[in-house]
Amino acid sequence: MTQTTKVNVEAQAIEAKKASKTLMILSKEEKNEALNHLADVLEREYETILAANEKDLENGREKGFTEAFMDRLSLSKERIADFAQGLREVSELEDPTGQVLSDWTLENDLQVEKVTVPLGVIGMIYEARPNVTVDATGLALKSGNAIVLKGGSSAINSNKAIVEVMHKGLAETKIPKEAVQFIASTDRSATNEMFTMKEHIDVLIPRGGGKLIQAVVENATVPVLETGVGNCHIYIDKDADVEKAINILVNAKTDRPAVCNAAETLVVHKEWLAANNEALIKALKENDIHVHGDEHVMNIIPGSVLAGEEDWANEYLSTDIAVKAVDDLTDAITHIETYGTKHSEAIVTENQEAADKFFALVDAAALYHNASTRFTDGGALGFGAEIGISTQKLHARGPMGLPALTTVKFLMKGTGQIR
Amino acid sequence: MTQTTKVNVEAQAIEAKKASKTLMILSKEEKNEALNHLADVLEREYETILAANEKDLENGREKGFTEAFMDRLSLSKERIADFAQGLREVSELEDPTGQVLSDWTLENDLQVEKVTVPLGVIGMIYEARPNVTVDATGLALKSGNAIVLKGGSSAINSNKAIVEVMHKGLAETKIPKEAVQFIASTDRSATNEMFTMKEHIDVLIPRGGGKLIQAVVENATVPVLETGVGNCHIYIDKDADVEKAINILVNAKTDRPAVCNAAETLVVHKEWLAANNEALIKALKENDIHVHGDEHVMNIIPGSVLAGEEDWANEYLSTDIAVKAVDDLTDAITHIETYGTKHSEAIVTENQEAADKFFALVDAAALYHNASTRFTDGGALGFGAEIGISTQKLHARGPMGLPALTTVKFLMKGTGQIR
Repeated sequence: MTQTTKVNVEAQAIEAKKASKTLMILSKEEKNEALNHLADVLEREYETILAANEKDLENGREKGFTEAFMDRLSLSKERIADFAQGLREVSELEDPTGQVLSDWTLENDLQVEKVTVPLGVIGMIYEARPNVTVDATGLALKSGNAIVLKGGSSAINSNKAIVEVMHKGLAETKIPKEAVQFIASTDRSATNEMFTMKEHIDVLIPRGGGKLIQAVVENATVPVLETGVGNCHIYIDKDADVEKAINILVNAKTDRPAVCNAAETLVVHKEWLAANNEALIKALKENDIHVHGDEHVMNIIPGSVLAGEEDWANEYLSTDIAVKAVDDLTDAITHIETYGTKHSEAIVTENQEAADKFFALVDAAALYHNASTRFTDGGALGFGAEIGISTQKLHARGPMGLPALTTVKFLMKGTGQIR
Repeated sequence: MTQTTKVNVEAQAIEAKKASKTLMILSKEEKNEALNHLADVLEREYETILAANEKDLENGREKGFTEAFMDRLSLSKERIADFAQGLREVSELEDPTGQVLSDWTLENDLQVEKVTVPLGVIGMIYEARPNVTVDATGLALKSGNAIVLKGGSSAINSNKAIVEVMHKGLAETKIPKEAVQFIASTDRSATNEMFTMKEHIDVLIPRGGGKLIQAVVENATVPVLETGVGNCHIYIDKDADVEKAINILVNAKTDRPAVCNAAETLVVHKEWLAANNEALIKALKENDIHVHGDEHVMNIIPGSVLAGEEDWANEYLSTDIAVKAVDDLTDAITHIETYGTKHSEAIVTENQEAADKFFALVDAAALYHNASTRFTDGGALGFGAEIGISTQKLHARGPMGLPALTTVKFLMKGTGQIR
């Protein structure tokens, strides 16, 4: 008999669902002990993980991945210690389950409680970075959920080793190891199978590039927590302070150009541009920001190239920026509505009325008045842990902490009440 | 030139989106005044609506619809006054938008506010009852949302007349009449067009039978608030009080058999059944409840017919009931997990431990200990208004009041903060 490595995604999802029932009734102390133990085991067994990581790095070198990509893929004793530290920090956060959101008693003495409970099973579909394997597992277990992990093929050996080490650790805790399922396949059909497993998976969370997220959103019948793509704008109003405007623009564009809350387009009032073009040009030059402008901008900013639909609609994730000149606030809002991804949008102005209008009319998870878009992030906002940044409107919008991994139950306690 | 009546669903959805921007910035007083004015106009113009309703009733008679269906379709001066009264009551509820859910200041003095805001445009897909046209419009406008209404073909003339009257009324308020769009088509393709209009419609709410809801859930890429199907169970435990058990069972089954929180299956502990079969049989007989039982039950309850998969899996919405005998609580929970729709589930027992286990392990929106499932309903729970009962886990679960029609924005107020 030959051994087959074909994975059975459904069987794994069913195991996760079963394990979620055990997890659901563990105390917060039992869950926290398990997380701390996982942290210790990861640190202890780091060599196993590094050996597997070496295989992924070799494959990556053969495939000629970029240096930045290889860096994200690469693990070290220190990085694994960071993963462990992350688990310990999650163990110290408030338990998001078992919280009574409201309770009241009906006239007939029926007691009603609205209580937070785990979702059940989380399906995590992600690319590249092996840290997601540990981070997502920690957040899932902390919130009483089982997890089905489907990582990217480039990190498959690292991810598999991490999960094996975590399984070994879980065997010494109250959490069944079946609560963490790893789909050990590089086959896309394994991912697609997860899309429709409504009975076994309660929510899918895609983490990665726009294409991955779109594939999940468009094809999944399992509910999705949509994260990530941020085509963010900085609007410099007629009444913007020059120093604030330039500082915010440069920070939002260059602090970390590859992240989703980085600015991708500058929308600028023509009057402000006319009055302050020298300062702006100087700042762009000093910070190596390359401009793709409309025709009006092309005539003002030297070295800019003509922007087209592609420039307005997409993230550069580099120090390139699209620049659109507008006649007024209304034009600016229309541009943002047309091309924005409802992530983070900023207005720089000293005019409170303009700021209020921007806040009221721009439809996005996070709106900024006189600050950089870079603060849309669970860490910066003090959430303690972040599952991702939701760009959808239902369930959770903006940076998502542990509560996004819970749902509610209405618990009714009676003494024979009928209607 | 001939006039065509082909509807342009996309154009209507775009109009709704545009109108939603105006709605979003109206004060709560302006919205409430509009609702009260709509109520007055509906009462004043009732004859127009009744004339249109007569056409639907004629068509219904020709098609040989059941008496119950015709009753739901039929309007009267009094029913229209009830619709108006409903609008007035909604106007008196708390505005679900503009509420600051939390606010804090970062160390750099950036002020953060998490505020509730309207979703934007609600797509309502519903069957039969013309009251949904008014109720849904009232809830949408109250929460600052525009609405695209697609009602069932049997009520199309009534719905169209109601919307025409409401448009006339809106013209005299601050709410643009484009905020209420009615898809005047009996063509299913018009409904299907709404499924993928993510840019213009923010959420779809299907109200009606299981087939309609499934079609929306499975085919829509627009996020859905799933409502309704309730295959609810009453579990009578070994330690159940006889009187409570029988009262609750009879109430949950017969009070309103056609609603989603009615009981469809009795799961009964074999020991309790053996000890109390006479009382149970008497109650079932007196209340004309017809039993579809498993083999164990068939031998105990006279006149019962053998139940199959269909009986366990579906709603009867009549005074029929499926009855399953179990050996213990675990078997009961397994049966409910297998066939339940995560709506409302009840346990009758004097054993607190059993009740606790049931509450912890059964995965449903509403769980009852010693009370009838009939209380899962916004009215009974004191929500003031109900959009539907969510059987999904994300966004809103269980009875949904006005807050389910809102999302949040993070508003960041700075003085030039960068990261």
